[in-house]
Amino acid sequence: MSDKYIYKFGEGKADGNAKMKESLGGKGANLAEMSSIGVPVPPGFTIVTDVCDYYYKNGKQLPKTLKAELDENIAILEKRKNAKFGDPKSPLLVSVRSGAAMSMPGMMDTILNLGINDEVCEGLAKKTGNERMAWDSYRRFINMFGDVVMGIAHEKFEHELSAIKSKRGAKVDTDLDVEGLKEVVTAYKRVYKENASGEGAPVQKKKGDEFPTNARVQLEDAIMAVIGSWMSPRAEFYRTKEKIYGLKGTAVNVQSMAFGNMGDTSGTGVAFTRNSADGTNEFYGEFLINAQGEDVVAGIRTPMHISEMKKVWKDIYKELDGIRLKLEKHYKDMQDIEFTIEEGKLYMLQTRGGKRTGMAAVKIAYDMVKEGLIDEEEALIRVSGDHLNQLLFDVLDPKEKQRAVSEHRVFTKGLPAGPGAACGQVVFNADDVVEWKKQGKKTILFRHETSPEDVIGMADSEATVTSTGGMTSHAAVVARSWGKCCVVGASEMQIDYKKKTITAGKTVINEGDVVAVDGGTGELILGEVKKTKSPVISGLVDNNEDAKKTEVYKMFVNLMKWAEKTKTLKVRANADSPRDSLVARALGAQGVGLCRTEHMFFEGERIWDMRAMILAETVEERKKALDRLLPYQRADFEGMFKEMDGYGVTIRYLDPPLHEFLPQDEAGQKEMAERMHISIDKVKKEVQDLHEQNPMLGHRGCRLSITYPEICVMQTTAVIEAACKKEKEGITVIPEIMIPLVGKVEEFQYLAKIVRETADKIIKEKGAKFTYTVGTMIEIPRAAIVADKISGGENGAEFFSFGTNDLTQMTFGYSRDDAGVFISDYIEKKILREDPFVAVDQEGVGALVEMGVEKGRKGRKKLKCGVCGEHGGEPSSVKFFHRTGLDYVSCSPYRVPVARLAAAQAVIEEKRHAKKKK
Amino acid sequence: MSDKYIYKFGEGKADGNAKMKESLGGKGANLAEMSSIGVPVPPGFTIVTDVCDYYYKNGKQLPKTLKAELDENIAILEKRKNAKFGDPKSPLLVSVRSGAAMSMPGMMDTILNLGINDEVCEGLAKKTGNERMAWDSYRRFINMFGDVVMGIAHEKFEHELSAIKSKRGAKVDTDLDVEGLKEVVTAYKRVYKENASGEGAPVQKKKGDEFPTNARVQLEDAIMAVIGSWMSPRAEFYRTKEKIYGLKGTAVNVQSMAFGNMGDTSGTGVAFTRNSADGTNEFYGEFLINAQGEDVVAGIRTPMHISEMKKVWKDIYKELDGIRLKLEKHYKDMQDIEFTIEEGKLYMLQTRGGKRTGMAAVKIAYDMVKEGLIDEEEALIRVSGDHLNQLLFDVLDPKEKQRAVSEHRVFTKGLPAGPGAACGQVVFNADDVVEWKKQGKKTILFRHETSPEDVIGMADSEATVTSTGGMTSHAAVVARSWGKCCVVGASEMQIDYKKKTITAGKTVINEGDVVAVDGGTGELILGEVKKTKSPVISGLVDNNEDAKKTEVYKMFVNLMKWAEKTKTLKVRANADSPRDSLVARALGAQGVGLCRTEHMFFEGERIWDMRAMILAETVEERKKALDRLLPYQRADFEGMFKEMDGYGVTIRYLDPPLHEFLPQDEAGQKEMAERMHISIDKVKKEVQDLHEQNPMLGHRGCRLSITYPEICVMQTTAVIEAACKKEKEGITVIPEIMIPLVGKVEEFQYLAKIVRETADKIIKEKGAKFTYTVGTMIEIPRAAIVADKISGGENGAEFFSFGTNDLTQMTFGYSRDDAGVFISDYIEKKILREDPFVAVDQEGVGALVEMGVEKGRKGRKKLKCGVCGEHGGEPSSVKFFHRTGLDYVSCSPYRVPVARLAAAQAVIEEKRHAKKKK
Repeated sequence: MSDKYIYKFGEGKADGNAKMKESLGGKGANLAEMSSIGVPVPPGFTIVTDVCDYYYKNGKQLPKTLKAELDENIAILEKRKNAKFGDPKSPLLVSVRSGAAMSMPGMMDTILNLGINDEVCEGLAKKTGNERMAWDSYRRFINMFGDVVMGIAHEKFEHELSAIKSKRGAKVDTDLDVEGLKEVVTAYKRVYKENASGEGAPVQKKKGDEFPTNARVQLEDAIMAVIGSWMSPRAEFYRTKEKIYGLKGTAVNVQSMAFGNMGDTSGTGVAFTRNSADGTNEFYGEFLINAQGEDVVAGIRTPMHISEMKKVWKDIYKELDGIRLKLEKHYKDMQDIEFTIEEGKLYMLQTRGGKRTGMAAVKIAYDMVKEGLIDEEEALIRVSGDHLNQLLFDVLDPKEKQRAVSEHRVFTKGLPAGPGAACGQVVFNADDVVEWKKQGKKTILFRHETSPEDVIGMADSEATVTSTGGMTSHAAVVARSWGKCCVVGASEMQIDYKKKTITAGKTVINEGDVVAVDGGTGELILGEVKKTKSPVISGLVDNNEDAKKTEVYKMFVNLMKWAEKTKTLKVRANADSPRDSLVARALGAQGVGLCRTEHMFFEGERIWDMRAMILAETVEERKKALDRLLPYQRADFEGMFKEMDGYGVTIRYLDPPLHEFLPQDEAGQKEMAERMHISIDKVKKEVQDLHEQNPMLGHRGCRLSITYPEICVMQTTAVIEAACKKEKEGITVIPEIMIPLVGKVEEFQYLAKIVRETADKIIKEKGAKFTYTVGTMIEIPRAAIVADKISGGENGAEFFSFGTNDLTQMTFGYSRDDAGVFISDYIEKKILREDPFVAVDQEGVGALVEMGVEKGRKGRKKLKCGVCGEHGGEPSSVKFFHRTGLDYVSCSPYRVPVARLAAAQAVIEEKRHAKKKK
Repeated sequence: MSDKYIYKFGEGKADGNAKMKESLGGKGANLAEMSSIGVPVPPGFTIVTDVCDYYYKNGKQLPKTLKAELDENIAILEKRKNAKFGDPKSPLLVSVRSGAAMSMPGMMDTILNLGINDEVCEGLAKKTGNERMAWDSYRRFINMFGDVVMGIAHEKFEHELSAIKSKRGAKVDTDLDVEGLKEVVTAYKRVYKENASGEGAPVQKKKGDEFPTNARVQLEDAIMAVIGSWMSPRAEFYRTKEKIYGLKGTAVNVQSMAFGNMGDTSGTGVAFTRNSADGTNEFYGEFLINAQGEDVVAGIRTPMHISEMKKVWKDIYKELDGIRLKLEKHYKDMQDIEFTIEEGKLYMLQTRGGKRTGMAAVKIAYDMVKEGLIDEEEALIRVSGDHLNQLLFDVLDPKEKQRAVSEHRVFTKGLPAGPGAACGQVVFNADDVVEWKKQGKKTILFRHETSPEDVIGMADSEATVTSTGGMTSHAAVVARSWGKCCVVGASEMQIDYKKKTITAGKTVINEGDVVAVDGGTGELILGEVKKTKSPVISGLVDNNEDAKKTEVYKMFVNLMKWAEKTKTLKVRANADSPRDSLVARALGAQGVGLCRTEHMFFEGERIWDMRAMILAETVEERKKALDRLLPYQRADFEGMFKEMDGYGVTIRYLDPPLHEFLPQDEAGQKEMAERMHISIDKVKKEVQDLHEQNPMLGHRGCRLSITYPEICVMQTTAVIEAACKKEKEGITVIPEIMIPLVGKVEEFQYLAKIVRETADKIIKEKGAKFTYTVGTMIEIPRAAIVADKISGGENGAEFFSFGTNDLTQMTFGYSRDDAGVFISDYIEKKILREDPFVAVDQEGVGALVEMGVEKGRKGRKKLKCGVCGEHGGEPSSVKFFHRTGLDYVSCSPYRVPVARLAAAQAVIEEKRHAKKKK
């Protein structure tokens, strides 16, 4: 912490620069930078974030030397502006704004026109010859000061303004004349006096205190208000929500006023240097004539498009457009700017990197490479996973969506668990989905939560919505793996299966009602909303030639090429069928990292053989049922090997507890009894026998195959026979057999022996040439601890795949189905920074992954290590896995591009980090 | 492995000695040792275990040099005995016996009289002048060879013998004359020929092969049979069951015969050098005149007590008693011996450490210290935890129990989860227990499994029996903590709550039937069986003066004194009430290592306030209910502090998921609705809302108090107010507040802050002087990984208590409620050596404990570390925790003596290990 607390800027020079965001805040740093590069900025100064830090670390005291530094800087500013605080003849008026290192809504807003009082107002009127502007500035200041510094509700001022406007027949604010404005000022002063209790406000005043007329008092109160707002509940909430940690506090920007409200040659505006919605290289923004500050965004009057400025103020537009290009060239990124024109003179008040849609992000990055502004690596860094993701899915038509929002048709919101958008009729169970589909209807499946029984319904509906469950609940995982739209944990909804209704607040929705689902935001909308399909998917997956001609397709393909060149981590996909595999390859997956074979047992008739297998009372009966399942499974593997020609296919053996294959509801049990010619009591007994207190920690994974080795034999036969057949057809097959849920080396070796004996026999019989490997999931903490034993020796595991979903569950002791109840509370209380099921917990779970890799490679030098949990598609996790030295990550097919991008970013960040260290 | 495969012994000298058990087996080593110290042993030799090892490691081939060595040793033996294999004039007859380093039933039994055939038999008759003995030996040999070597069922021979006996009017075998015996030999040869298919037998012969007459062939077949029996399913099963690992194989003992069947001056017997039932220093055993081998134990004739030998064979008795004393003095332990008298000459055939009851083990160890045979440390090593445990509990009267067994009243068997014995009437729910108790009836509670709702029933019944669950199921843990009799997982039982019946096999038991429960063996017995109470408990806990005068009491107290002098690890108790604390102190606990506060919320009226707390919809309502719980909890703490004057009391805050406090059954829910004046629907909704997929990984532990901090405030208030009050009364209070289920340092710090603020305020107000500490359970894998963070810094945890129950669940991914299904299968398949919930898994869970201790003490140098899982009372685990450097273990009060003993043994073993290394 330096002893300098205040940095000047403006008029071609500045004490600071753009790199000093940490101490000047984003706003202050960019004001300094703009000043330095010759962009017109009204002079002012920035009080650094260290002051805020000091204040909270020292019992809410300001540094002692600050006052003198403030005096000095006010004096300099007065000199520069040839004006004086509180001097009616030549008054200095300033704006006061907060500004932390990261943009942060919820902190104090802007105060304009600070320094005004009755005399100054008169003086200002005289000096500028613009009485209206003076009184307009005065009334704005009282409002802003009262609201922001004293915590008086804005509505109270608004109420007075409306009353006076309607009394005087003024439609918009600018219709009010000087007399009207004077009346507003009087009314506002009264509002202030009546409400300034100071309770909960950043600055303590008593109720009944008059509005402060001393400019220096106004300034000090405003500075305190900015600093106080750093710890406001709103700001704290925002930081928690956006995971913003480690900032020192906010800076305070004090800047001489430029008045946009000086009449028809004055104005104010906000703009993006390129189109923030689609990325087009065009000036994109709005402005208002004779207006100040927030008028543009507040919607008080309808602003004009920036292009119209050409007609009104040709020269100013030219200057502004020049500044736009200058800023882009300087910052090498699209900027979000604010400006004011005071009697024909242009001033820039702010510049910062502009928020953008996925489409815009990709286009801007891509164009800037072509324009030579940035290189390919920088372009890869500029595009986030979320950005990229937006290009892959159907979305609700933005205009229709906007209309729905304005019509208040959004009836509730859940977690955006599966991407895309959907529209259809409400149904409440999987059977109805299938039935309605036959009738040609599109449906949205609403459930409390889903279970494997619901998967057919999930597949056939447009989207699935649940009232419970989190981002890795069953519904979420299945939907994401299919790239299907899904919203989970919409807990405000009450779903009544019997009445077939959804109640959310006052809205009651019945079966058959049409709703739309926004998988990008989690919003649920009543009524029809059209959607548009991603050309990237049409081109890559459906091979649609028209789609391939679109710009977005071409950009996407190029961006992915750059990523591929850069990254070293391989990206595979979690795929359970030939179709999944096809999609995965189309999106760039370098193999299948996880094929969950149990998913093959739910489809169509297969479930009945599976159930027969479960009901079997002897090994013989079990083998018979397994024999019937064999051809299904073999056929699926054949399809997958074909799609993955030349790439590895990691096949995980049966994993879930058996009860998941049995119907849990009365009707389903009855159907099962009838169909299988057994008594309902027998079905119920089986369901009861398989019931577990904690199925997550129960009889599943390799434990099943150890109890019933014949399952392992059947699955190996299916894998190897399929591989033999495909090899004969000229396909390069690389089967990788994966034993799940291993915690002890003995478990692995018990099953690996069965696998190898079964496989070697078939390979010998068929005279096949391919080699296969046997490996294991590392998803039990114990497995990471004894990883060297598991990979060691001749019969050890040949590869590891870290199942970070389960590993997270057991390392934390969190059931992903139940933890939703407290995880949000934990995040609010800052116990967790983020949901560990979304981004891998590097400190705990990550430490076990590191241990597993290190020990595993001690046991077997060239052990292949990967990750196949949900984290494999989450950018921060992918980067961690890259650093940990994994060979690959595997994720849902539709997350593959995001993972590829993150893998590339990991390399670039590593490079830059190494450079910095040098 | 040396090149010497055969070791001679007998007649005052031997190649080997007692220390060579690993290679000579226990039997061979002791035969050598006895030979060396001048005890009469028939000469012979031992083929070492390396041969067996070699055989299985080299494709079932024997070492090439063995044959020559065998030839040589046979020649030596022939010379020593002045006899020849197969020589009718002076035939050498031998016995062949297996013998591994550890006693192992299930392997090959003894073969006697090997070397006999028709001519040898005649020769033997001539040489000894005892024709009867010759034919008796012959028929025995064919039977044993056929049975043991060829796998011919013993019954087939027995059948022939019976027929001949009954035809000839012989009551017992000795009634048969020479003609009879000849007829038996002929019949036996036929049986051999007809059945010697060799299928599954260790030695391959064809059906129809004649009985082998060549002595050398007989010997080689017998040797192969011994080696083959090492891998018999029976032997493998036994080793798995008894957790015997790492042995090389079995040795083979070939020994010249001493004939106990030479007439009235011959005989054979088995004996213990002291009474193996109660430890009395008296010769204790049985013998038979004119008998051979297994006759004594086979019960063919009724043997005589060893003391009767004084009358029959005074001199031999004197010699034998001399040998008894010599052996004890030499081996410094009670011995189990076998001997044979051949025409007045005594031969010892075996000596080994004798199996004994707990009572005998303690008495023998204690007496031997007094006799100067061993020192106190050796005495401590000689007594096992199981031995000690037997002294602490009620047991079924041995005679009555024996009768019940012989009357086939044992209807099923479960796991012996809670110690002791009980007898009472069968009931099926907790309410009935309470109701029947009011009527003065003693009950046994039978449940599928128990839940916290059942605890009152468990407390008021004599014992609890469940059909599911393992050694650490709810029922088992609760019962053990109370020292109550309990049997769990008696899975053969079908309990029908509706019909109120238990079905086990063909037995149907109705409500009200009297049953007895043996908590030491898990046996369940139909009908009344009386029990006897432990004088140790009467003396220590009930302060019964008569009990204190008993020898067993005195011995116990002295043994514990020796242990206390030796051990360094502290032993605390898990205690939830003043009564538990009293018992714990009486049994030597040095503080409470775990007080599960939730147990205080079930008793009596408290459950209703707890339920009101759960139903509360606002913080205010919740606080009100908590305020009502406060006095109960405070009173309990007061009582505990009083009992633990001067010792630490570790209090764990609320841990189980809230649903455990709500009734899960319809009737209970109805009662709750009525009593709390709410609708049954509300109750049901609450139960449903609190339902979790995996409650073990759900909203429990510190997660509860983070959601509802007011619980933490109430519990802290209760602890600290109680401590203040007791301090004023002159008691030294050492409260240790423990936050459960911490996985992140933020969780600990969030609650520790609340605890410290609340506590400091009360202490200041009351002017108290004691200090308290705040620590945490380490029971989540993640906590062990980040232990340095949790203990680090000023606000870090001041102590760790490893909750190895939950740590085992999460490290393995085993739910202790569900894992029973596969754990037994795992043990059978050698995937697990033992149930990790019984003995701590040192490799995995232990590694996390080590990591936690190491990291924890990195964060806080003098961090106190303990264990409070069920493992704290299991000897091998206690020793592991000692080695890991923990400060204490904590276990159920009744396990405290066992833990103290194990802690002392750990020190002694460490000392001995260090000495060995030197």
